[in-house]
Amino acid sequence: MIDNNYIYRSLKQVANSKALVHCITNYVTVNDCANILLAFGGSPVMADCPDEVQEITSISSGLNINIGTLNHMSIEAAIIAGKRANELGIPVTLDPVGVGASSLRTKTALNLLNTIKFSAIRGNISEIKTLIYGTGSTYGVDASNSDPINDSNWRKYGLLLQQFSKTLGGTVVAASGPIDVVANHERICGVFNGTAMMSQITGCGCMLTSVVSLWLASCRPSTNIFHDFETTVSAISAFGVCGEIAYDKTIRANGGTGMFHCNLIDVASTTPRNEIAVRSKFQLL
Amino acid sequence: MIDNNYIYRSLKQVANSKALVHCITNYVTVNDCANILLAFGGSPVMADCPDEVQEITSISSGLNINIGTLNHMSIEAAIIAGKRANELGIPVTLDPVGVGASSLRTKTALNLLNTIKFSAIRGNISEIKTLIYGTGSTYGVDASNSDPINDSNWRKYGLLLQQFSKTLGGTVVAASGPIDVVANHERICGVFNGTAMMSQITGCGCMLTSVVSLWLASCRPSTNIFHDFETTVSAISAFGVCGEIAYDKTIRANGGTGMFHCNLIDVASTTPRNEIAVRSKFQLL
Amino acid sequence: MIDNNYIYRSLKQVANSKALVHCITNYVTVNDCANILLAFGGSPVMADCPDEVQEITSISSGLNINIGTLNHMSIEAAIIAGKRANELGIPVTLDPVGVGASSLRTKTALNLLNTIKFSAIRGNISEIKTLIYGTGSTYGVDASNSDPINDSNWRKYGLLLQQFSKTLGGTVVAASGPIDVVANHERICGVFNGTAMMSQITGCGCMLTSVVSLWLASCRPSTNIFHDFETTVSAISAFGVCGEIAYDKTIRANGGTGMFHCNLIDVASTTPRNEIAVRSKFQLL
Repeated sequence: MIDNNYIYRSLKQVANSKALVHCITNYVTVNDCANILLAFGGSPVMADCPDEVQEITSISSGLNINIGTLNHMSIEAAIIAGKRANELGIPVTLDPVGVGASSLRTKTALNLLNTIKFSAIRGNISEIKTLIYGTGSTYGVDASNSDPINDSNWRKYGLLLQQFSKTLGGTVVAASGPIDVVANHERICGVFNGTAMMSQITGCGCMLTSVVSLWLASCRPSTNIFHDFETTVSAISAFGVCGEIAYDKTIRANGGTGMFHCNLIDVASTTPRNEIAVRSKFQLL
Repeated sequence: MIDNNYIYRSLKQVANSKALVHCITNYVTVNDCANILLAFGGSPVMADCPDEVQEITSISSGLNINIGTLNHMSIEAAIIAGKRANELGIPVTLDPVGVGASSLRTKTALNLLNTIKFSAIRGNISEIKTLIYGTGSTYGVDASNSDPINDSNWRKYGLLLQQFSKTLGGTVVAASGPIDVVANHERICGVFNGTAMMSQITGCGCMLTSVVSLWLASCRPSTNIFHDFETTVSAISAFGVCGEIAYDKTIRANGGTGMFHCNLIDVASTTPRNEIAVRSKFQLL
Repeated sequence: MIDNNYIYRSLKQVANSKALVHCITNYVTVNDCANILLAFGGSPVMADCPDEVQEITSISSGLNINIGTLNHMSIEAAIIAGKRANELGIPVTLDPVGVGASSLRTKTALNLLNTIKFSAIRGNISEIKTLIYGTGSTYGVDASNSDPINDSNWRKYGLLLQQFSKTLGGTVVAASGPIDVVANHERICGVFNGTAMMSQITGCGCMLTSVVSLWLASCRPSTNIFHDFETTVSAISAFGVCGEIAYDKTIRANGGTGMFHCNLIDVASTTPRNEIAVRSKFQLL
């Protein structure tokens, strides 16, 4: 059962594990992904040459695949690394950045879903819908304005995600927005942390999926304590809380998105873990 | 006719449009380009796989091509995307980073000029001269010291750029330096905003061309109000003003280039648009 | 003979040279590498397309090869550029990021050592050991915990590095950790600057090797004053001092790794060069 104490314990577990997370990711936000992993206590390793990813995944505790600036090399690398992670029981996460914006992205994401068993998938709601329906529209890499997740529709979206999770055999599916919805085949949770400024810098989505990957990589070894669904909720909530605290700091200093970008990493690296956990807000359906 | 009110209206138009700008750009400054576009109100999408750029450009309102870390994949992508943008009437900008430093860069830039109709081209004066003469020397990706734009030569450079614009059929050509010169086939303008510290961090040139692309993408739909020449001047002036304000903030806080880098994005995201517009300084010839 | 005055003179030489440094590097930390070079007074140029690197190296004063996100294109580029640098007498540095984590990295690094004469090589102790023994273990791109450099073993490591330097014909070899050890065929030096927070952000290792490359590029022309071994020690010490000052600033402001990241560039760009030099701490064996 997830509660604020579960989140606290997951934060400590992450800080103590120094888990190695292999990221096959885009070159836009890669530096932020590395720094947020380090801030929470993880150890990032970025590698996307098909000749080496099998070995890099093998020494890692988690694999995160992000298709933000996909190309033939990184697609091939993702397939190889994902299969290897599956063989070794290493959790794999997917960030289907911009899926629906091009047929290459859609085709690649669907192929990844068919080839690799993911522990968790996280995207904005437009991206998740595209995965579900096999086609969709996005506004580039941002969610289209037609379908934000809000207080009146998140339960409905939760059911949609749950249905999708069932077809994937229980993969945790998370859709981000003003409210984040997380579902697996059995449960649905709304997460009410975060701040709108997170969508005004590039990389918060990418960072969040990296953070989910780190949480799974760190908490998996203690499966008697942690479970993927709750662990994913914990990661999303913790990162959202860091966004809130960073926003408060930024506004107090009359800052903007440049300062917020810096504060977000700062907060993740310095805020006492119990202060993060206590601010977590979520609701299980 | 351009005046401070024109610049103010362009800033508002940009903020309201949330225009999608497709960037085929380098991996050195790509994160800064994304964040500066977001700070002004745009929506960046980075994609350089030849298999998808035609679709990505098609859903975008602007295309920005930057050859800072060009390779065969990105060159092919730039050609495909540029042609598509031309077919659809989407404005295309070029940042010929480091042209003259290698024959690959020179050949590629000249080939792009021959293949694609650009709405605007912006580089440092060494780069622009290389485009004009087909050969040239740069100091890596920085302008060589022999030819900075100053108070006594900017009008002469303006005439050179105007001549070049005529050969390109009216493309707006902008050369950056201590003074920025902008010309098309009909007009020449000197822009007197900016600060020397902008050349002491990487990415200000790349960001500026991205910003020009965003301005054109946002203002084009209102062609009864905005015109490419004035819109380009507005973008360059607005970004320069943000640099000035960021510099003032940095110096007041005894900061250096790290803080300036952060402040630049900050200022672009928070400064009231009328405060930016009122500081614009330019002179039409 | 190296002393604090040598370090001061090297800092001034770097600031006055505006040396062009060609970096073939990874996309994770490339922005930081460019900004730290600019902060000290250098001029970075990043280029990794095999078709242009020979020309880019030829106009540069230094070449830095970093295999952090190596692929077939960048490996080919490194070989071409390195050979060219050797022909022209341009100093070449190697950062063997993550060597030992995959056979591609190990094979590539060893092939680079066999093909190119390096002026200096810098990595963490796990990486340097892998180069020495031809095999090894790392924790991704971080040093494994089994072998940190400390007060009681740095002299022993110095002898190991010196032996390695002899087999390389005198290449300066530097291993980073809580203490940095630098050796060539004749001398060994321990450098006692730096702070643990430097390992809590991504890029400090990459930045440091870039900085060594800048120091060699700037100081080489004055070989009657500067020598590669002392120049490398100076670069490592100066960067470590900047880390210390940035850490002090960060802690005073209750900041974390986000602020430290920003402060590090800041300090390198603004701290009076004599203040940096006076804090240098090193011991020659």
